[in-house]
Amino acid sequence: MSTIPTTPPSGFRDFLPDSCALRSRVIETISRVYRSYGFSPIDTPAAEDLAVLMGKAGGENEKLIFKIMKRGEKLDLSQGASELADMGLRFDLTLPLARYYSRHRGVLPTPFKAFHIGPVWRAERAQKGRYREFIQCDADILGSESNRCEIEVISAVMTVFKELGLAAPAVALNDRRMLFALCDHWHIPEDKRNSIFIAMDKLDKVGAEAVLADIGQLLDGRVPEDLRAFVSSGEADHDFLKKVAPEPMAGLLQIRETLAQTSDSYGPFTISPTLVRGLDYYTGPVFEFRCPGLSGSIGGGGRYDGLTEKFGGQRTPACGLSIGFERLMLVLEEAGAQKASGPDACLTVFSDELWPQTLGLAKRLRGAGLRIDVYPGTGKLKAQFKYADSVKARYALVLGPDEAAAGKVNAKELATGTENLVALDDLPAFLKFKAA
Amino acid sequence: MSTIPTTPPSGFRDFLPDSCALRSRVIETISRVYRSYGFSPIDTPAAEDLAVLMGKAGGENEKLIFKIMKRGEKLDLSQGASELADMGLRFDLTLPLARYYSRHRGVLPTPFKAFHIGPVWRAERAQKGRYREFIQCDADILGSESNRCEIEVISAVMTVFKELGLAAPAVALNDRRMLFALCDHWHIPEDKRNSIFIAMDKLDKVGAEAVLADIGQLLDGRVPEDLRAFVSSGEADHDFLKKVAPEPMAGLLQIRETLAQTSDSYGPFTISPTLVRGLDYYTGPVFEFRCPGLSGSIGGGGRYDGLTEKFGGQRTPACGLSIGFERLMLVLEEAGAQKASGPDACLTVFSDELWPQTLGLAKRLRGAGLRIDVYPGTGKLKAQFKYADSVKARYALVLGPDEAAAGKVNAKELATGTENLVALDDLPAFLKFKAA
Repeated sequence: MSTIPTTPPSGFRDFLPDSCALRSRVIETISRVYRSYGFSPIDTPAAEDLAVLMGKAGGENEKLIFKIMKRGEKLDLSQGASELADMGLRFDLTLPLARYYSRHRGVLPTPFKAFHIGPVWRAERAQKGRYREFIQCDADILGSESNRCEIEVISAVMTVFKELGLAAPAVALNDRRMLFALCDHWHIPEDKRNSIFIAMDKLDKVGAEAVLADIGQLLDGRVPEDLRAFVSSGEADHDFLKKVAPEPMAGLLQIRETLAQTSDSYGPFTISPTLVRGLDYYTGPVFEFRCPGLSGSIGGGGRYDGLTEKFGGQRTPACGLSIGFERLMLVLEEAGAQKASGPDACLTVFSDELWPQTLGLAKRLRGAGLRIDVYPGTGKLKAQFKYADSVKARYALVLGPDEAAAGKVNAKELATGTENLVALDDLPAFLKFKAA
Repeated sequence: MSTIPTTPPSGFRDFLPDSCALRSRVIETISRVYRSYGFSPIDTPAAEDLAVLMGKAGGENEKLIFKIMKRGEKLDLSQGASELADMGLRFDLTLPLARYYSRHRGVLPTPFKAFHIGPVWRAERAQKGRYREFIQCDADILGSESNRCEIEVISAVMTVFKELGLAAPAVALNDRRMLFALCDHWHIPEDKRNSIFIAMDKLDKVGAEAVLADIGQLLDGRVPEDLRAFVSSGEADHDFLKKVAPEPMAGLLQIRETLAQTSDSYGPFTISPTLVRGLDYYTGPVFEFRCPGLSGSIGGGGRYDGLTEKFGGQRTPACGLSIGFERLMLVLEEAGAQKASGPDACLTVFSDELWPQTLGLAKRLRGAGLRIDVYPGTGKLKAQFKYADSVKARYALVLGPDEAAAGKVNAKELATGTENLVALDDLPAFLKFKAA
């Protein structure tokens, strides 16, 4: 048998301690901000029935699903590939939320403000910066038609960026209904619209030329001149938009204005009439967050008033967004985010005799809220100091027989090499003071 | 097509906001304690190559694995069931850790103290209290042979219980080598030992009678009288154990003594010579945490010095444990753990005109570290108060035209109905004071 691999499957990742600590800290910040906005945490399983994931349509999403094989006697090869799997890993957090809300709405507040942070899985071709397992951070409001929901979820994300010490992202706003109204205005056949939206969704990635070529094919070369200008410029006159789609445009202007009034800066809110935001369940406003220097978006969302109907429940107005956690980590790393630090001190173990006393000291320091590593093993002090360095401890502490007799500890600051003899009673304050 | 289900797959769970918040808080506590002991966070993927999960042995574990089907052209039905899947969901965190350490040891400290908290998946029959997706909270020390590692990981768990406000669990200690030595002493054939251990592992669940019946079958009815007495009582004379297995027994006594010296209470550390701890990779001390009133263990672990060899690397001494998070939640719920509270206040929206001012107030309060829900929508004040109740907010705040003109807010404490007119400037302190 060949050697067992030590690498994760393609597109999956291990996280080293520094990176893992930073990711945890960012997740904690996002949770804290979402909670500060009154969103409640929810959680759903990693796996869902395939019927939930594939919906009534199936199609595009089906290819993205990691399918879980049936087990034991349920596995019947003769039934063909489609009968071999009964569950799949969730590929986003919105579909599970819709199922969750359909099931639990009776015991949930109305409206319901929820946040959901967790991994999702997509069987896409793994490539640089694109993973098959990645984290999404969603915030949603279900049960309200008011565009105050859009404002609330967008504001929460602006605060996340601020709390992470990042510049405010640019926010692009659009409304799916405005796209529909434009199609009416330009007499685009109904059956071509969705394909045109899919083509237009790639505007950022492939540019106007390529999108127009696609649209040209879809419309047999008959692309209205206004549509051509619209796609090329990515813009449209606001007065024109107000005339073609009065209600959606008024809503967008109100969202933009309120955000501008209540956010720290006005600049980043723009109406981008060509914005599509892929997923076809959006029914109203859509929006996207963009960071300077990063192609593509760092998250986005929109209104999806029909999604819970899939589950046989009543139509529920809903609006939500997702922060692309992995892209956010990229931005943070480029902004030079501090890696998490090591323990406050590493306590060396001088001898077997002093081991219980050493543990007692560790207990006392930990009780004072300090992070104290005790050298896990036996070894020369030199090796223990080397270990203290490698775990990035701020101090190495030595409790030898002389120190123990004097009720003191030798504290060596590893960055500077400075040593201090500190009385045991003063040690928590000493380490805390230096930690501040 | 039939209706899409709104329930999760069998053995998988949704978590309502209260439960989810409590779970997050417990995970944060465990992380904080593990970090306070100098353990570093790591993370590994949900999915591993099947070769990693099934190892060289395959066997028992294979049945537990949720297998992920190959995708696209890799899926070839003609190759039979064993060729249809290439990955599986991890069923514990120890095997991924061994792979992780084998891959990354060059950039990790020696010894390496790691903690890992995350879901694992097991295709077991779902039943009350047993789930197919559940969380484990592992702490491990790799690269040290010293039984100080055992003491450190056990101490960390004792601190977790203390920090969660729970009574100290009873800790049962044993050493696999002592079991081997007893088998030698009783002349048990080598090839029967593992099966006998598997039988003995069920002692807690099925009782001595049933275990002895199993052992009787394994040994063709020839069960040594001492073995019979050993299994029946679950005990053995310590002097006898010292004679049969001097080194393991000395180690256990030292672990017990040091724990007793450095922990808050002595009572709960006992040597349980029949303790097996299932998994066959344990090579030395094993231990288990038990809570009064809960059958079975709430976690446990042991030394597994050979596991990294699977991955072609050098033999690495290692020791670790796992807290059974779901069982811990049961104990916490029985102990009446406080469910997480709702937002500090729900800010009602009086009118469209006052909406921006309301948002401005929310921003200010959130900036002061308060959790402020703004009613997400438009509606009568009565409905908004009902909403504030349903999200368990402590206060409902009203900023109407009179209040706005006076620079004040009406703050209604929802539990008592008490109302206060509070100046805007005083509001953060007012809500914080009440929050304390």
